[in-house]
Amino acid sequence: MAATAPSAPLVPRYPTPKPSEKGIHAIILVVCPDQRGVVACLSNFVYQNEGNIIDADYHTDYSAGMFLGRIEWDLDGFAIPRGEPLTKAVGELLSGYRDVRWEVRYTDVKTKIAIFCSKQDHCIMDLIFRHRNNELGACTISLVVSNHEDLRQLVESMGIRYECVPVTARTKEEAEKKQLDLCKGEGVELIVMAKYMQILSDSFLKTHPNVINIHHSFLPAFMGAKPYHQAHQRGVKLIGATSHFATADLDAGPIIEQEVVRISHRDTVEELVRKGKDLEKIVLARAVRAHINHRVLTYGNKTVVF
Amino acid sequence: MAATAPSAPLVPRYPTPKPSEKGIHAIILVVCPDQRGVVACLSNFVYQNEGNIIDADYHTDYSAGMFLGRIEWDLDGFAIPRGEPLTKAVGELLSGYRDVRWEVRYTDVKTKIAIFCSKQDHCIMDLIFRHRNNELGACTISLVVSNHEDLRQLVESMGIRYECVPVTARTKEEAEKKQLDLCKGEGVELIVMAKYMQILSDSFLKTHPNVINIHHSFLPAFMGAKPYHQAHQRGVKLIGATSHFATADLDAGPIIEQEVVRISHRDTVEELVRKGKDLEKIVLARAVRAHINHRVLTYGNKTVVF
Amino acid sequence: MAATAPSAPLVPRYPTPKPSEKGIHAIILVVCPDQRGVVACLSNFVYQNEGNIIDADYHTDYSAGMFLGRIEWDLDGFAIPRGEPLTKAVGELLSGYRDVRWEVRYTDVKTKIAIFCSKQDHCIMDLIFRHRNNELGACTISLVVSNHEDLRQLVESMGIRYECVPVTARTKEEAEKKQLDLCKGEGVELIVMAKYMQILSDSFLKTHPNVINIHHSFLPAFMGAKPYHQAHQRGVKLIGATSHFATADLDAGPIIEQEVVRISHRDTVEELVRKGKDLEKIVLARAVRAHINHRVLTYGNKTVVF
Amino acid sequence: MAATAPSAPLVPRYPTPKPSEKGIHAIILVVCPDQRGVVACLSNFVYQNEGNIIDADYHTDYSAGMFLGRIEWDLDGFAIPRGEPLTKAVGELLSGYRDVRWEVRYTDVKTKIAIFCSKQDHCIMDLIFRHRNNELGACTISLVVSNHEDLRQLVESMGIRYECVPVTARTKEEAEKKQLDLCKGEGVELIVMAKYMQILSDSFLKTHPNVINIHHSFLPAFMGAKPYHQAHQRGVKLIGATSHFATADLDAGPIIEQEVVRISHRDTVEELVRKGKDLEKIVLARAVRAHINHRVLTYGNKTVVF
Repeated sequence: MAATAPSAPLVPRYPTPKPSEKGIHAIILVVCPDQRGVVACLSNFVYQNEGNIIDADYHTDYSAGMFLGRIEWDLDGFAIPRGEPLTKAVGELLSGYRDVRWEVRYTDVKTKIAIFCSKQDHCIMDLIFRHRNNELGACTISLVVSNHEDLRQLVESMGIRYECVPVTARTKEEAEKKQLDLCKGEGVELIVMAKYMQILSDSFLKTHPNVINIHHSFLPAFMGAKPYHQAHQRGVKLIGATSHFATADLDAGPIIEQEVVRISHRDTVEELVRKGKDLEKIVLARAVRAHINHRVLTYGNKTVVF
Repeated sequence: MAATAPSAPLVPRYPTPKPSEKGIHAIILVVCPDQRGVVACLSNFVYQNEGNIIDADYHTDYSAGMFLGRIEWDLDGFAIPRGEPLTKAVGELLSGYRDVRWEVRYTDVKTKIAIFCSKQDHCIMDLIFRHRNNELGACTISLVVSNHEDLRQLVESMGIRYECVPVTARTKEEAEKKQLDLCKGEGVELIVMAKYMQILSDSFLKTHPNVINIHHSFLPAFMGAKPYHQAHQRGVKLIGATSHFATADLDAGPIIEQEVVRISHRDTVEELVRKGKDLEKIVLARAVRAHINHRVLTYGNKTVVF
Repeated sequence: MAATAPSAPLVPRYPTPKPSEKGIHAIILVVCPDQRGVVACLSNFVYQNEGNIIDADYHTDYSAGMFLGRIEWDLDGFAIPRGEPLTKAVGELLSGYRDVRWEVRYTDVKTKIAIFCSKQDHCIMDLIFRHRNNELGACTISLVVSNHEDLRQLVESMGIRYECVPVTARTKEEAEKKQLDLCKGEGVELIVMAKYMQILSDSFLKTHPNVINIHHSFLPAFMGAKPYHQAHQRGVKLIGATSHFATADLDAGPIIEQEVVRISHRDTVEELVRKGKDLEKIVLARAVRAHINHRVLTYGNKTVVF
Repeated sequence: MAATAPSAPLVPRYPTPKPSEKGIHAIILVVCPDQRGVVACLSNFVYQNEGNIIDADYHTDYSAGMFLGRIEWDLDGFAIPRGEPLTKAVGELLSGYRDVRWEVRYTDVKTKIAIFCSKQDHCIMDLIFRHRNNELGACTISLVVSNHEDLRQLVESMGIRYECVPVTARTKEEAEKKQLDLCKGEGVELIVMAKYMQILSDSFLKTHPNVINIHHSFLPAFMGAKPYHQAHQRGVKLIGATSHFATADLDAGPIIEQEVVRISHRDTVEELVRKGKDLEKIVLARAVRAHINHRVLTYGNKTVVF
């Protein structure tokens, strides 16, 4: 970390009593240019306010000159009440540092998710069942949006709202407006493209930038359409899947997770599709889970997953 | 396989006695357009001539309309003497089929190899030690060719001939001529580029087409120069290595083997290089071993590795 | 293969016309002591009866002295009608060989499956959704048997019969009798234990030997109860899952498939359970799929999965 | 972490000037019962003494009630001189905590290693070449000890001292004494058993407890002799290798690293041996590298590898 250190972090003590928050954790995420003292500042802040640190991860990317950090602690016995006081305290704490992006999160606040899908059920049902079994972390699947009716019955039988918004080249703009309205109406924070098979426009992503997609190849190999056909034609010996944040550049957003599986000459394109589905499910679920647990930080076109 | 069947394979019996060949195997490799009867023809040929089948692998790529086969049997007790008689018999056997490429190989005939290297020792020493421990199959490392002197002592201490042929942009044509002469002089059949870091010209590859290269990425991702830097910049979560036949199109030849390893945000480019070396060694050694054991068949821009 | 060859296989031609069977395949599975000629015999049989070989796999385990083979061909245009005539022909074909176990299967005949489960839904729902998407091959899920009511609604909503048979130490014998009756009533051929968490008695397995189980460890490590706890306590760096045929010896039956995933010191037992679920689903599905496609052969306490 | 917090860490400032130590890092390792404040104490200590934190890893094993930590920082500009002053300062820093094991290490101090081997060259040559290419970290291979002469020439040609100490059941005690004397004479801190194939006695391990071994199975499966034979007989679908600290209980010491590779029914025991060698090399090298970089902490029978 670099030379210019801020003055010692000021850690005000809050007089107001705080209700017990057994088992509830707070998390601070920090991204900033590399500068000395941030690690000590964060761990000191938690320690001096009687917090019990559960997890602390730091990373400096020297080639990019960036620092990224995440600290998680138990709120039980913590001196500063959650919500506004804590937000204010963290803001003051980090005000001495340069160009800091930061946020405070709580493990009992559920992220509201919309899942976008098309006709394939494997990724969406995988997410729904993981959610049912509490594997994803604190989240609510508020809404499923599809451009087809195929999965309505399945989704609704799981007690989840299903909205069909057909999309054609001509109606895309209008359709996206409707999709955004639906998400806004539900207070959706994260959109998961679970094999949605449509490209979201720049304008959509500007309005709602927090979108995780699954691409069925080991990016950056085989970008664009029909990656399993491309893989079969190239004769690769492994196929992959990649979850990434959707950006205006197709399949070029920050990568969150990747996995591969071995294939052989025996595998037809249909076999690649079948084997790839297992990758898609696992890779997408890992990315969504990491995001919901506030473990994914982005900088430039890259992620750090703590 | 398709409809037009050839007449039943004629399997002449050879009267001449054959010396016992304990533990020596013969191998037939076949590549042809898909047509009915090749599998039965090959297994029948071996069976009716008292051969003991050790291994039989067949594959039909329906999308390409191609059949590929490999049959290996013990020569002990086999009715047809090895060498010219066997070659002639196989030629007659397969003469009824359309557009057949075939060859006959023996497990006691050592493939003569030249290893091309530059300054890095990990791939070449890995191959030399595997050869020393009989891990590669029947082969001789006849020659090491390098554009630098760095590895001379190490290679010569293992009892292997080392020739340094410096290469500059200006002298490349002349250097390649010298390399080809060296290979020809040693009767080299397979050239292994063990981190040679130079591109062989079209003209070189036309003269000597049997060249296996190792590329330090999961092709087709990150072709060309500095793939680990490319991988670091793109923020992938796995890195790979690819062994392939060298062709005039850089990093675009038929892929023989690939492998990946997980990385994290903690890994600098230097760490990627270090982790990648293990992949490079393993992937190159697997490809060389498969080739020496006559398990690699090519068609179009793809391989089948039986 | 050994010296004593049977007489050349006699392949009678059947005069009766055969209805076209587009896209339907027949499969012969063979297990016998190693003896010369079986490969040629099988491929010849298919070839001479105008069959189009799709897949042919052979393996000789020299240490056990056993031969195992599988040949699959398209019935379209095949000279021998399926059913009794083909069974009879194969019986005659293999009658010259010693101690042969064999069977004939057809890809359009659906294997009837019963899934046994307890309270956990991940393995059973994974199988049901794979079946819904035609990933498992030709099969029918005829019945779900559980010792609890928990999953009734979920299973029945997928249109599958659900029977609850409570099991206590005192009622186990009676319960197993009822389970066997239910399976018999549905004509069940394969029982899949999808986290059933009960041990089937010897007597049950003698009556119905075709049972695939999933064990949540990399067998033979951590046999018996609470394998994830055992793994956590031992401090292993990878955890695994194993699908195997159930036998009277707990967790000691022939292994069909295994897979592992990397863990770290950060993973609590709960995390191992969560990560292990993905392994369990994939490993069980692969085993069931291989079995349904008639690719699993057993000998001694081992399997060959072609 | 638990309730009883020590008083705020006292961090004395040292007046003596300190020579510049560009690129040299110090590392503190800490293992203790879980107690509040250790993380803040360590990061504060480095920060307030003008240290630039490079890496900071913490882990609490709640099931064992243990805290483990590792902090690494650049000594350039650090206020406390290395050596005795720093050791003293850390001792004072941690004196307020209960039952703390700690050590201070420097990245420019080379760990002195003895490699024990027998006849197989793959692990030992792999380590020697990695060391030659600076892949292992700061270490010196001071000595190779073998119970056979086979590898003398190879090892000595790399400029490394080779001592042959034959071991028989009758002479084992005497041989171990000689081995210990050799290690002591060279100031060896770490013994690496690179396929040494002998069991070190309790008495040996009491005198020199810092011994890393490689076992050619996925422990705890297949402990003891001939694990590849055991694996072949059991019919597993993956084989593994495990590096661990040697303890008096055979193959039961704390596991440092494990890896597996897929096998098939085709693989004979000889193939398992060949495939396993790649695992052994990689797994042993990873463990040795982690240890040399002071990333391996032990508690109970487990390790944390930061």
